[in-house]
This record gives sequence, structure tokens and C-alpha cells, in this order.
Amino acid sequence: MKRQIINDPGAAVTEALEGMELSFPDLVSYDTDRQLILRATPARDKVGLVSGGGSGHEPLHAGFVGRGMLDVAVPGAVFASPTALQVHEGTLAADSGRGVLQIVKNYTGDVLNFTIAGELAGDHAVDTEMVLVDDDLATDGDADGPGRRGTAAVVAVEKIAGARAELGGSLTEVADAARRVARTSRTMSLALQAGTHPGDDRPAFDLADDEVELGVGIHGERGTSRVRYASADELSEMLVTPLVRDLGLGRGSAVLAIVNGLGGAYPLELSIAARGVHRLLGARGITVARTLVGTYVTSLDMHGFSVTLTPVDADLLKLWDAPVRTPALNW
Amino acid sequence: MKRQIINDPGAAVTEALEGMELSFPDLVSYDTDRQLILRATPARDKVGLVSGGGSGHEPLHAGFVGRGMLDVAVPGAVFASPTALQVHEGTLAADSGRGVLQIVKNYTGDVLNFTIAGELAGDHAVDTEMVLVDDDLATDGDADGPGRRGTAAVVAVEKIAGARAELGGSLTEVADAARRVARTSRTMSLALQAGTHPGDDRPAFDLADDEVELGVGIHGERGTSRVRYASADELSEMLVTPLVRDLGLGRGSAVLAIVNGLGGAYPLELSIAARGVHRLLGARGITVARTLVGTYVTSLDMHGFSVTLTPVDADLLKLWDAPVRTPALNW
Repeated sequence: MKRQIINDPGAAVTEALEGMELSFPDLVSYDTDRQLILRATPARDKVGLVSGGGSGHEPLHAGFVGRGMLDVAVPGAVFASPTALQVHEGTLAADSGRGVLQIVKNYTGDVLNFTIAGELAGDHAVDTEMVLVDDDLATDGDADGPGRRGTAAVVAVEKIAGARAELGGSLTEVADAARRVARTSRTMSLALQAGTHPGDDRPAFDLADDEVELGVGIHGERGTSRVRYASADELSEMLVTPLVRDLGLGRGSAVLAIVNGLGGAYPLELSIAARGVHRLLGARGITVARTLVGTYVTSLDMHGFSVTLTPVDADLLKLWDAPVRTPALNW
Repeated sequence: MKRQIINDPGAAVTEALEGMELSFPDLVSYDTDRQLILRATPARDKVGLVSGGGSGHEPLHAGFVGRGMLDVAVPGAVFASPTALQVHEGTLAADSGRGVLQIVKNYTGDVLNFTIAGELAGDHAVDTEMVLVDDDLATDGDADGPGRRGTAAVVAVEKIAGARAELGGSLTEVADAARRVARTSRTMSLALQAGTHPGDDRPAFDLADDEVELGVGIHGERGTSRVRYASADELSEMLVTPLVRDLGLGRGSAVLAIVNGLGGAYPLELSIAARGVHRLLGARGITVARTLVGTYVTSLDMHGFSVTLTPVDADLLKLWDAPVRTPALNW
């Protein structure tokens, strides 16, 4: 077994959630019966936000529960969707009378279970809307398949929608803000080493000493290509160039940039990667209006990083800058 | 060379600082001439706070520059003290007319260079006080040596002193608050794998598959003993038990707990470790009044964690809870 700081591998997710509740009791509450993370003090009279999905992406999603972001997180097992019943309970728990926005990363199981939960919520007279986050550019053009995967843009969607809800927006207005961010955000990721599932002996896939996996997913999925190990600047360019091209960014564009560690990257590396991203965008005349640098959407202990770009205007920046108070994001 | 997300290993520190400035231009400014990280908007009419030391511990110290914490960070090369001249410039830059508190981790080079800088500041009519942070319990009892090392308690010292300065405290008052935290805080650390210096082939020391280094330092120093690899709960106990004993904690005590990743630990692991720390302290009747969980004081990509305990009362909690706005700590 690869050595990790865990007890029983099968209990890693629930123990981590317990640790989050014990560490941030003023922010979050862990309902072990329903397997939900709730705000310690439920919000009143606002649109509720619920998200969730497989675990192994910590601090996502439980770390984003709190004022200005989510009301409820629904965690599954590692890389496994929560059940429809669990999502149903989470959707109802997020409601304070103004309806609930479900924020769903585009994976078949998650989409199915959130859809069922949305239908069940209707039986309880709870209005729901769903926003699908499908930002992973590496999986673009898969017309016959499930479409693009959802990755780190979910942080931007949850932050922007959370702010809009906190400001009193209607369900339609909150959903519109979320969809705008989801529709216009794209992410590219790479790994120098795959993540290792708790209790496993080895990473999800092997890389040779001179290989980097480009276009990698956050569930141990292989990437779209293997490239030679290269400098941080060259690696950053492999992520930024396709994003800029796909989003049609150029002189005069303004973006939010999320430089996200995938679990095993350490802070010095992420700052160097962020420098590369800024320089590449700056050289193209693209303004980076805001940057988030850190470890937010992980694939266990994967050694790598992702770059997410979201075009922004003054309205979105106002929502991005609005106060937030969660275990993993604060300002 | 072990693969890291870097360009030139020799430029890793300065590039990371550039990345921090580019990512958080509203918070920090990187003065490349003087090799200082400054607040983007200098504070006025308050006691200045300057800290620094070797790099490789990111986000420390540059990540803690901003409102409510440091005014200036003085970064050295990886694991090497900044020069006395550099600290001198940093000390002067931190002054806004009310004097400067120097926060120094207890390493020979740092103490020497900050002492010289403090003396030089006097020639410029800038009052200084120095607080020494020497929290590493693993190096206790070294009466003939340099004394205990300074590790993660520096975050608590910088946060508390920063808040006291922001509230208008005099140099003596700010220094007293800092010294109280420094005097009463203790830390224990362990590693499952040592960190690897950028450009090196291997970690600073080797561990067998079943070994854990207990009492490890943050500069690649070996620990005080090797123990068998064990569960997260058992590892947490190895850190917590000596801290509780040394600090004389028991029923009715209240502490701030910092569960700090040393670079390579990923968020799921840190939450599980935090759970263990809370359960161990709770079982002894010790209240954990506040918890900080995350990657704050690293040893490059070392895979391990540290636990810092600081006894707190209502006054200290008020300072801890005061607003802070830095690249790495916000609320």
C-alpha cells in the first residue's frame, strides 16, 4: 500500500468530513445520517445551492459550504457519485423557500442522480434548476459521448452563483449567472504523476520518467496525449494556448484565472506555474483581472496542475469579489 | 533530477515571488532590487511587522504579507537566511513611524542577520523589537545548542501580532502579544517522505518503506527518532501527546490548533489528521477554540504534517479572529 496519512482506506472520506466539521464548527455541519455537509447556520429566504459528486477532490465540495457559496454538499465515495436519494435529501435541505440550484459536474452518474433528485424535489413543491459544469477542454469534440468533463471551473460557478443568491437573486437569476460562468469557462490539466487511491499500491496509471500526461481528468482518467517533461513555463503554455484559442481570447479580453493544484503539487510549484500563466496571457494582451492560486479541486495526491480561464466583466467581478466564508475559500 | 513544476532550479524562489505578485497585485508588491515582498498599499501610522528567513517554506512568509499580518517579508534562498543588508532594508521598509517588530524563527543565521538589521535600524532612528519563535518541541532540551527551532507557530505569532498592530498597539504592546504566543506555542512534526530541493535527484534523507521520521525539521533536518509507519490516528497521537504534556494542558484548557501540511500532504490527509487531533484533545477535555488546517509552513514537497498548539483566552481569540487579507490567509 502506498503510504498516506489515513486510517481505514474505506473510511477516508467520512473521516475527512468529520475532520472538517470538527475544525470548522462555526461554518459547516456534517449530517452523518443523510451524508450531507450543511452550513452550520442555515441560510434563510434565499435561493439554495447544492453541489456534490464523488470524493477524492477535496476541498471540493464540502470545503465550499458556507456564506456566499454552497448551502449543501453531497459527497459520494472516492470518485463515485452520491446516490439519488442522498442528492434528493441534499436538495431538500438546501431549500429555504426560494428554490434550489443544483451545480453538477458533467459525469454520467452525477447527472443522472441530480436529475432524479430534481424530479423528486418537484414532488415536494421545491423548484429546482440544474447547471451543468463541463469545462474540461481536453474532452471537447466528443459529440457521441458524454461531452466535456466538469473540473475546476466548478469553483467559479459556485462562487458566482453563491454571491448572486446571497444578493437576493431569484432562482432564474442565480441559474443564469451560474450558466454564464459554466458556458464560458474552460480548463486544461496535466499530471507529472497520477493520484493513488487510498489503500492502493500504485498510482492510477504509470508515467515514464520523461513523460507528462496532458489533458488528464480528475478521476484517474488518462489524458489525451503524453508529452515530454518540460519546464514549468512550457507546461503552462501547453495548458494556456488551447484555452486562449478555444475561448477566442485576445487583446482587450479580461479573465479570471484559476491555477489549481491537483493534490500533490506544492505551493512553490503553483506560484511558478501562476507566473507562467500570467506571462503567457500578458504577452497576448489578455488582462488577468483576478487569480486564484492554490489546491481547490484535486485528484487525490496527483502531482500536477490545471488552469481554468473564465472571461469576466464588471458584473461578474463584483460577484467574484463578494464576501465568502467557507473552510476552503474566504474573503 | 526529481521532476517538479519549475524552470531553472536556481530561479525557483524569485519566480515564485513573481508569481505571487502577478497573482495578488492588490495585496503584495515584489521589490526585486531589495528582494522584499511589501504590501501593495503600505500601512500608515502603525507598528510595522517584518519577518523572513530561508525560502522553501511557501506560502511562508511572503504569503502572509497584507492587512492584519506582515508589512514586509524578507525571503532568502531555499533554506538560507536572507542577508543582513536585505533584512535591514526590510526593517526600514516596514516602518511607518511607530517602530518595527521583527519576527524571527530561531535559526542562527536568521537571528544574526535580524539582530544586525535591528542595530542598523537604530542608526536610522527606527525603534525595533525582536520576537524569537522557537516552538519546535522536538529540539527542546538542547541547552548547549541553538535552542528550539522555529516552525509553524510563526503563523500564529504573525497573525496575533498583526492584529494587535492593526488595532493601534504600541511597539511594546505588539511585541508583548507576539512574545506571549511565541512563548506558549509548541509544534511537533513528522514526515513520511523528506522534501526534495529543486534540482536535486532525491529527497534530503531516505526513509525505509515502514519508517516515519518523527520530530523532523523544515530544512531537511533529520528528526529525533524513526518510528513505524502507522495509522493517521496513531501518527497524530505521536505529535499531540508530547505537546499536551509539555504545555501542561488538561481539562479546561483552550487552544488554537494548527494542523499544517509540510508540502506534499494532500487535503484529504490533512482533514483526517485534523480529525485525529480533535479527538485526542477532546478526550482529554481540552477545548480546541480555533483550528487552522492547510498547507502554511512547508519544507518544499515534504510528505508529512505538523501540529501546533497555542493556549488561548478571549483576548487572543479576538486578535486571531480579527480581519486578515493576505495571499495565504484571509477572513
